[in-house]
This record gives sequence, C-alpha cells and structure tokens, in this order.
Amino acid sequence: MELVRARSGPVSKSTVTGGTATSWAGVAAGHPFGIHTLPYGVFTDAAREQPRVGVAVGDAILDLTAAAAALLPEHFALFGSGSLDAFLAAGRRTWTAVRAALTEWLTEGRYANVLSPLLVPAAVATMRLPFTVADYVDFYSCEQHATNVGQILRPDQPALPVNWRHLPAGYHGRAGTVVVSGTPICRPPGQRRLPDGTVIFAPSSALDFEAEVGFVVGTPSVSGRPVPLTGFADHVFGICLINDWSARDIQAWEYLPLGPFLGKSFATSISPWVLPLDALASARVPPPPRDPRPLPYLDDTRTEPWGLDITLEVRLNDHLVSRPPFAGMYWTPAQQLAHLTSNGACLRTGDLLGSGTVSGSAPDQWGSLLELSRNGSSPLTFTDGATRSFLADGDEISITGTAPGPAGSIIGLGEVRGQVHALVNA
Amino acid sequence: MELVRARSGPVSKSTVTGGTATSWAGVAAGHPFGIHTLPYGVFTDAAREQPRVGVAVGDAILDLTAAAAALLPEHFALFGSGSLDAFLAAGRRTWTAVRAALTEWLTEGRYANVLSPLLVPAAVATMRLPFTVADYVDFYSCEQHATNVGQILRPDQPALPVNWRHLPAGYHGRAGTVVVSGTPICRPPGQRRLPDGTVIFAPSSALDFEAEVGFVVGTPSVSGRPVPLTGFADHVFGICLINDWSARDIQAWEYLPLGPFLGKSFATSISPWVLPLDALASARVPPPPRDPRPLPYLDDTRTEPWGLDITLEVRLNDHLVSRPPFAGMYWTPAQQLAHLTSNGACLRTGDLLGSGTVSGSAPDQWGSLLELSRNGSSPLTFTDGATRSFLADGDEISITGTAPGPAGSIIGLGEVRGQVHALVNA
Repeated sequence: MELVRARSGPVSKSTVTGGTATSWAGVAAGHPFGIHTLPYGVFTDAAREQPRVGVAVGDAILDLTAAAAALLPEHFALFGSGSLDAFLAAGRRTWTAVRAALTEWLTEGRYANVLSPLLVPAAVATMRLPFTVADYVDFYSCEQHATNVGQILRPDQPALPVNWRHLPAGYHGRAGTVVVSGTPICRPPGQRRLPDGTVIFAPSSALDFEAEVGFVVGTPSVSGRPVPLTGFADHVFGICLINDWSARDIQAWEYLPLGPFLGKSFATSISPWVLPLDALASARVPPPPRDPRPLPYLDDTRTEPWGLDITLEVRLNDHLVSRPPFAGMYWTPAQQLAHLTSNGACLRTGDLLGSGTVSGSAPDQWGSLLELSRNGSSPLTFTDGATRSFLADGDEISITGTAPGPAGSIIGLGEVRGQVHALVNA
Repeated sequence: MELVRARSGPVSKSTVTGGTATSWAGVAAGHPFGIHTLPYGVFTDAAREQPRVGVAVGDAILDLTAAAAALLPEHFALFGSGSLDAFLAAGRRTWTAVRAALTEWLTEGRYANVLSPLLVPAAVATMRLPFTVADYVDFYSCEQHATNVGQILRPDQPALPVNWRHLPAGYHGRAGTVVVSGTPICRPPGQRRLPDGTVIFAPSSALDFEAEVGFVVGTPSVSGRPVPLTGFADHVFGICLINDWSARDIQAWEYLPLGPFLGKSFATSISPWVLPLDALASARVPPPPRDPRPLPYLDDTRTEPWGLDITLEVRLNDHLVSRPPFAGMYWTPAQQLAHLTSNGACLRTGDLLGSGTVSGSAPDQWGSLLELSRNGSSPLTFTDGATRSFLADGDEISITGTAPGPAGSIIGLGEVRGQVHALVNA
C-alpha cells in the first residue's frame, strides 16, 4: 500500500475526532458516523450509475468498491456486485479484516491521497436496498410492547400470551416487500370489519409504524444444525433499523388463527446502513432478568449475553414522539436466532430478523401509534395543534438510533424514513 | 429446424399414445407424463454435472437446455442457468411458445433424430429444486380441512374462524427451507407443553404431513397494483405438489398470537416437476358456491373461475391412506393471488403459494394425520398390523396428483416424497 500524505479532496478533511480516534476524512466530533461506526451500504450518484458498496464516514461515503480495487485486491470481488451479499456471505474473519483495514485507512494520513477522491458527499448519493433479503422473520420480544398490545386489543385476557415468557414469539413476514428508507409507502387497502359487523374492503384507516431493530445474517447455517447462543456473532453480520408498517384494522380482522399477513406485508422499511456487530462492543449490556428461567437452549446466564444499549428516536413530521430503549428487550437477538434455528431450520445469507416493536415503560418510549394513542382513544396532539391517532396521507415517519461507542463516542445506526402516500385510484 | 426421421436412441421410442396425440418418444398409453402434460424440472445425471432444465416425457426427461441450443436458439438463455428462474420470469407469451415448440418436437417424427439423443431415462436422473423460492405463502382454503382442524383443536369454539368465509386466510412460511422431493426430513425438536403444564424441549412427537397443491409465480407484479382475478394466468406459471410437514405439538404451543412458525419452518417439500397452467385446461371446474358472496375483488362469479379437478393420493410407507380432491377447495388459487396482492404487495418470480391442506368430506379423503387419526385418538391401522397416529422415524410419505387431460388423457403432477429421519444427537 502506497504511503501518501493528506491533501485536499472533494470532502473537507480537517482532522477532527469522531470518538477517540481521529480521521483525516473530516468527521465532526460526536458525529454518529464517526471512525468507530463505519456502517456499510449501497449507493449510486450522478457519477456512479452502477450501485457501489459504500462506508459512511461523517457526512461522506467512502466508495468501498473503488477503494477495495486500489487497496484490498484480495477482497475486491466481495464489493464488485453493487450489493452487500457477497461480503455478508464471506464470514466473520473477513468482516473483521475489512473493518480493520477501513479503520487503518481512515485514521492514517498516508491513505488520504488515495482515498479522499473516493469520498462522496452523502447528500448527493442515493441509497439502495443494501442486501438481498432472504427470509424476513419478525419477533415480538419486548415485554412492554406485548403487554401494551395485549391490554389494548385483548382487555378481557391476560396481557401476555401464556407462551410469551417461554419463547421469543415470531412469524415470517414478506421478504419481497422489504424496501429501503425513503421508498414511498402506499396506504394499503384491505378487508376489515366495522363495529356493526359489516365487512368492507377499503384503504386502511389505522395505518401505523413500528420502531424495531433488525439483525442481518451473513454466514448461512446447515439444515438440522441449530445455532447455539454462542454462535450468534459467527452468523450475524450486523444490524439496521426497521419500520414495520402495520395496518391495524386489516390485522385485527385477519390475524386469527394464522397470525399477521396482509396487515404487515405491504411494506417494511429498513435503514440503508448496516452496522457491523463489531461496532457495538461498548453497547452490550445484561438483558433483564427472566422468570421462568429459559430452557437451556435459550438460557444466556452462562454466555456473554446480547442485550444492546441502543436508543431509538421516532419522529412524526419532525415532531419527536418517542424514544424507545432497546436495552430492556426481554429476548435478545441471540436468543431469537437460537430459537429460529432450534427446529433445524437453516439460515441463509440475507435473512433478516426484526426485534419486534421496541417500547419502554414510559408513554414517551412507546414504539407504535397503537400504543401512543391507545388505539385511537387518546390521540397525540402536536405543538402546532395537529392531532393523530394513526397516520394521515403525507405523514412522514423517521426512526433513528444511537448506541454508546468507545470512550464516550456515539455509534449511529442512521435513519429509516418513509412517507405515507394516498392509494392511487382508491 | 432440420427435418429428420425417427431412429433408435437411448429411450425406447415405439410410437404409443400418451393421450390423444402420439409421440415418437415412446410414451405408454395413459402415462401421466404424456404428450399433454410436459412439466418442467431441473436435473443432473452422471453425464451432466451442471444442472439442466428438463421436460418429463413418459419415463424419460428431455434435456431442454441442450434441445433449446439446437432448436430454439432465441430462447436458449432461458434454459442455460440450471434453474427455471429465467423461464418463469419470461412471461406467458414465452411459456406458450415454448410449450407449442415442445409439442411439435415430440409429436412430429422429423425431430426424433435430433432429440432422441437428448432423452435421458428418468431413473438415472437426480432432480433438483426447480426454481428459487422467493416468498412462500401458505393458505388455508379447504373448508373441510379447516372444519376438521377446528373441531379437533378448538372443540369449544365454532369450527370455522369468523373471518374464514370472507377471505382466503394465509401466512408467510419459510422460503429457505423449501426442499425438493426426496430430501430427508429431520424430525424437528422444539418447545411444547405437556398436559401437566410443564414446558419441555424435545423432538416432536406429533410429526405430520399436509397434502397441498402449490402455485408458482412467473411474472412479477408492481408494488401498489393488486392483481385482479383475471390476471391469475398472466402471473402464475404453473403448479406443483407440496408436503407442508408440520409438528403439531410445537405448533399448538407457539401459534398464539402470531400463527404457525417453528412447527412448520423446518421443511416444506415440493415435487420436482412444475406443470404449466396450460396443461390444466381440461381440469378447470366451477368452485363450490360461497356464502356470503365474496367482496368484489374476490367474486369470481363473473370471471372464468379457477377450480381445478385434481385428485391427490397420499401413501404412508406405500399404504394408500388418502385421496384428497382439490376440486372442492372453497377458495381458488386465483382468489388467493388476488387476496395476497390486494394490499398492494408485489409478486416476485418464484413466489410459491400453497393451497392449504386438501381434504374431502369422506375420512379417506383427509389430507393430514391430524385429521386421519383425529389427533391420535383414532390411530390408522395398516394391513400389516402397524398403527400410526403421527409419523415414526423411517416413515416415508408420498403424495401424487393427477388431473383430467384432453380426450380422456391423464395429466400427472408427479410426486413429492420424503422420509422422516431421527434427529442426530437428539
């Protein structure tokens, strides 16, 4: 690798900290995409019609497809296809090696000459769906959310289903309608039953968001060979943000006995940046105590548990409506993965696991409008006088996420954003 | 195309009928893979390490990858990849053109010289998963099955869920564990609750089959644009057989409130042959009357309905245990597709729709052991004295299917087969 000195390039490169280490690439102090974050995505811009793999560095994107060609020829094939698929499939040793190379490149001034021309301002890039979603499984692992939903929708029954504390409940969603942040969301039509018992087909009048964290599988597993709790980091590459859009009226009518279907399948939005697990070392926290003690395949009291101190923020038309805390999730992603594969089902590269809606104990920490408006009985009122029980056409939902990084730095998950559009010809 | 005369080749070619038309390729009269069937699959054999697209002709397979290179160069690219994916994506006009070409090739003796060397005995071929499964959706569209299940599992409630006659209920299954016929099925372990309330993790003791028909999407659809009933044949390429393996004990404990998950996701077997819809023209029948009348997007009284007179046969270790009739299905596949896309969800090439278990009114027409043994309360007894409530290790399930073809011919769907293996290290 050529030893070069920093000089000017397309992005300002005043050497500022993005955590503890400094980069010649000009990352502002406290930037959530600092040198300890380094998430991966796929982008195009005016100069790059073919999608490229990129790494977020402050307000810029490093063109990793081009950088690998120059500096990492042994791994170039992983970044040449305009998707993260090959890199995800390459496995943990490669993930670690590439992250180490990126850290070296961005912190050592000798690489600035080669790499600064490969920094693209994020503002001019268009982000793409970063990987091919294989199977999408959505869990239901937040006790506060499950309790809120139970109280709202099934007030005559115990709030938590009888199996809830025994297993991380989940279901398969529609992989083909997972879309990248920014994709317009059409208000779905569907069947619902009115209070008088009439069944109609009409655009949903109870369109909702759900703030979740997603886990992206890199390394596949073998059919018939469950992945133990300790195998989590061997198989899972990283995390993203999810907005699991939900039509509550469609869902309420259809969901017995087979679970959520068309109330969810019209669209699921994910953030464009996939953050490697390696960036979350400082965010690992113990999960809450469990009672009853989980069965051995789910018992994480003798493994390093995978609680993660991530805080989400949800904005509706720029009004902050919730700050859901991920650290309190009852079931961790490692338990979800162990459960998902416990019956011998294999994993594929690109499998996406949704955590389930994240809700904290306080009302301003609830992760859906169903909870925030108590199913419409207590609409949100904004400072401008607007009120919402569910989403109106034109509404935009933004979910962002951050976690603690090393030495006081902030690790950002970026943003998943989507605007509701009226159905054409509705 | 070269004009050639029939001569001897690797497969006997005495000109016998396979329906009304005759083929030089030697199809025995009444063979379910006669000249009116012509299903597509993917195979390898000792001479062909790279998977090839094949067409079943009697007891032989025509190597369509090679045949297209010789006789159909304009479509060769569709068959070069060792999967049906490109052909499925090519759309109805191409599907019809290729089927017309195959019919001409196999009925006109002038093609025998070129094609007979491309006929491989089916007995020496290994069949592969014929296409990449995109999303797998399993429906629940048989009234008799839903009624049986309701009576067995929820005897204190109405047999049919309240929404059942209003919509074709369905859920997403795991696409990554769809396997081709012949793949061994590992008995899944999982959580279940014993009658005394104890929750254990152990190999399923209630492993079952479900006899279903699958519909394979070829042409994708656009997000936000539902596919009407009349669009069914534009998007769906053809059909296959499905065994939707089910662990009833795992399913019973996990399914509330999110539906089937690990009780189904360990494996779903499909037949290796995908039969084009064009082969089913003589099998179309009116569906049963519906009450209440379906909402307009599901009302097929003014369209050509898609009831199909297919008869399945289920064998357990070669004992015929059931002959489920598909013609009586309450919801047709066209209604399933219209419902699936009614919320704007798009289709992808390779989407697989399962009909739901097929059961007729008579006990020897029920499509699962749950029904046949009344959940174990009335075990099956075979002529050799063996009994079964659910599947034992070593048991093999075979599901075959046939439909009427033109002029008294038989259209075969082939077979989906799978043997239960004990869990290793269980």
